Amino acid sequence: MRSISEYREEFLEYLDTKIEVKEPRNLYEPMRYILQLGGKRLRPVLVLMATEIFDADYRKALDAALAIEIFHNFSLVHDDIMDDAPIRRGKKTVHEKWDINTGILSGDAMLINAYQLFENYEDKVFKELAQLFTRTAMEVCEGQQYDMDFEAREDVRIEDYLKMIEYKTAVLVAASLQMGAIIARTSRECKDAIYQYGRLLGIAFQLQDDYLDAFGDPETFGKQLGGDIIENKKTFLYLKAIELSGKREARQLEHLYSINPAESLGKVEAVKSIFEKSGAAKLTRTEIEKYTQKAFDVLDKIDLKEDKKAPLRKFGESLMERQV
Amino acid sequence: MRSISEYREEFLEYLDTKIEVKEPRNLYEPMRYILQLGGKRLRPVLVLMATEIFDADYRKALDAALAIEIFHNFSLVHDDIMDDAPIRRGKKTVHEKWDINTGILSGDAMLINAYQLFENYEDKVFKELAQLFTRTAMEVCEGQQYDMDFEAREDVRIEDYLKMIEYKTAVLVAASLQMGAIIARTSRECKDAIYQYGRLLGIAFQLQDDYLDAFGDPETFGKQLGGDIIENKKTFLYLKAIELSGKREARQLEHLYSINPAESLGKVEAVKSIFEKSGAAKLTRTEIEKYTQKAFDVLDKIDLKEDKKAPLRKFGESLMERQV
Repeated sequence: MRSISEYREEFLEYLDTKIEVKEPRNLYEPMRYILQLGGKRLRPVLVLMATEIFDADYRKALDAALAIEIFHNFSLVHDDIMDDAPIRRGKKTVHEKWDINTGILSGDAMLINAYQLFENYEDKVFKELAQLFTRTAMEVCEGQQYDMDFEAREDVRIEDYLKMIEYKTAVLVAASLQMGAIIARTSRECKDAIYQYGRLLGIAFQLQDDYLDAFGDPETFGKQLGGDIIENKKTFLYLKAIELSGKREARQLEHLYSINPAESLGKVEAVKSIFEKSGAAKLTRTEIEKYTQKAFDVLDKIDLKEDKKAPLRKFGESLMERQV
Repeated sequence: MRSISEYREEFLEYLDTKIEVKEPRNLYEPMRYILQLGGKRLRPVLVLMATEIFDADYRKALDAALAIEIFHNFSLVHDDIMDDAPIRRGKKTVHEKWDINTGILSGDAMLINAYQLFENYEDKVFKELAQLFTRTAMEVCEGQQYDMDFEAREDVRIEDYLKMIEYKTAVLVAASLQMGAIIARTSRECKDAIYQYGRLLGIAFQLQDDYLDAFGDPETFGKQLGGDIIENKKTFLYLKAIELSGKREARQLEHLYSINPAESLGKVEAVKSIFEKSGAAKLTRTEIEKYTQKAFDVLDKIDLKEDKKAPLRKFGESLMERQV
C-alpha cells in the first residue's frame, strides 16, 4: 500500500496529463485554472486508497478519482458565485478572474466532464459508478440549497444542520470510498460499510471544520479565523449554544448574529466566549469524537484484514488531528 | 405510428406524473416551473418517434425523452442567466422569478436529474445513452461558449457560425433521434444515419430560425421580430451580407451593428434592406433548402421501409414550413 502523499503525487501527475486546454479556450481554461489551484485532494486519494484496500490496482481508479475531483471543483466554482466569494485557496475565484457567465458555463462543462471520465469502465461498473455519482451529486445540490435556505430561516434545528452537512460534504467523501469498492468489485456488504465509514467521517470532518473556524490556531489555520461568525453562519456551535444558553445569553447571541460591524474582532471574541461558556464548544468536540468513533466502529466490522484497514484508520485519525 | 401531437400528448402526461416537487422546495419548484412553461416539445417527440420507427414500443423511450427535455430546459435556465433574459415563453425566466443563485443551482440539479432518467435502462443501453448524452451536452456547452465569444469577435467566419449552431442546436436534435435508435437496438448504420438526419435538419432549423427572426410574418411570429438585429447578433444573414456587399454597404452594415438606438425600427428596416439587396436573404433561403435536402437525402438511404420514413419526412417538412 502507498502512503497518502504517494497517492496524491500519482493523482496530481494523472491530473496534469488529462487536463488539456482545447477550443473554445474560454470554456476549458477556467477548468484547468481551478483544478490546478491546489487543495488537499482528499477525495481522489480516498478513491485510489479504497481501490487498493479491496485488492485492485489503484491505477484502474484514476479516472474515477479525477471525476470526483472535477465534480468537487465544479461545486466550488458554482458555490463561489452563489456566495459571492472573491478568493479561493489564496487566488481569485473563477468568476472574479473571468466573469459570472464564464463561471456558470465552465462549471456546467466540468459537471458533464466528470461523467465522461467513467466511460473507460465496462458497462456494469460504468452504470454503478454513474448511478452513485448522480445520487451523490443530487444530494450535494440539495445540501447547498439547504445551506442557502438556512441563512434566511430562524427555525433551523440541529438535526437540519447535520442533514445539511451530510449532504453538502459527507456523501461525497462516502461516494469516493465506495467508488474504489465498486472498481475493485467487492461485495455489497463491503461497499455499504465503506460508504458508511466515509459518511460518518465526513460529518466529523465538517464539524471539525466549523470548530476550527472559531477555535483553530491562528498560526496554522489557513483561512480567516472567525469567518463563520462574521458571516453569521448558523453552524453546529451556534445552534448548540442557543440550545444550551439561558434566555439572556441566547438573546445576546442572536443579537450578535444580526449585526455586521466593520471591525469584527469584538464580535468574534464575544461570540466565542458564549460558545465556551454555554458548553457548546465542549459539546462540539464531544460530537466530533462521537462521529469519529462511530466511523471507526463501522471500520472494525468490515470484512478486511487488519493491515488493509490500517491506512483507512490512519487517514481518519490524520483528519481529526489536523489544525487546518 | 402516432401523429406528432399524439406523441406530444403522451409525453406531457408522462412529464406531469414524473415531475414532483419535493424538499428542498427552492431547488425543485423552479424545475417544475420551467418544464411546465410549454414549448413545442420537439426533442422528446423525436425520441419517441424514432423509437417506434425502429420497431420498439415508444413507451420504453419516455424516460430518455424526459431526460432530453430536462436537459434542454437546463440549458435554457443557464443561458437565460448568461443572456440576462427576463422573459421566456411569455413568462418570467427562473432567475427573474427567483434569483440568479436559484437559477444556477436548480439548473445544475436538472442536468444531474437528466442522467438519473437513464437509470431504468439495462447496463449496455444505459451506457450508450449516457455516453451520447455526455458528448452532446459537452458540445452544447461549447456551442454556447462560441456564441458568447462571437459577440466580441470581429473575425467570425460563416463556417465558424455554422459550427456554432451545429453544436448549440443541431446535435441535440440529432441525439434525440439517435436515442430512439439506441433504445430500439437497431444497427450501427441506422443509428449513425438517423443522427445525420437530425444534425442536418437541426442546422436547417436554426438557419430558418435566424431567417424568420428578421423576415417572419409579424402576425404569426411568436417573438419580437428583428430581435437578432437589435442585439447585433452576427447570424448567417449578417455574415453573408458582409461577404456579398460592396465596401460601402459592408461598412454601413457594420456601423448599424455597432449602435443601439432607443427606437430600433429604423435600424431594423435599414439592416433588412441590406440583407435583401446584398442577396444574403435569398442565399439564406437557398442554404436552408440545401441543408433540408441533404437531410432528406440521408433519410432516403436509411435501411427502413417507406412507411416508416414518412413520419420523419413529414416532421422535417413541417419544421421547414413553419412561420414560428
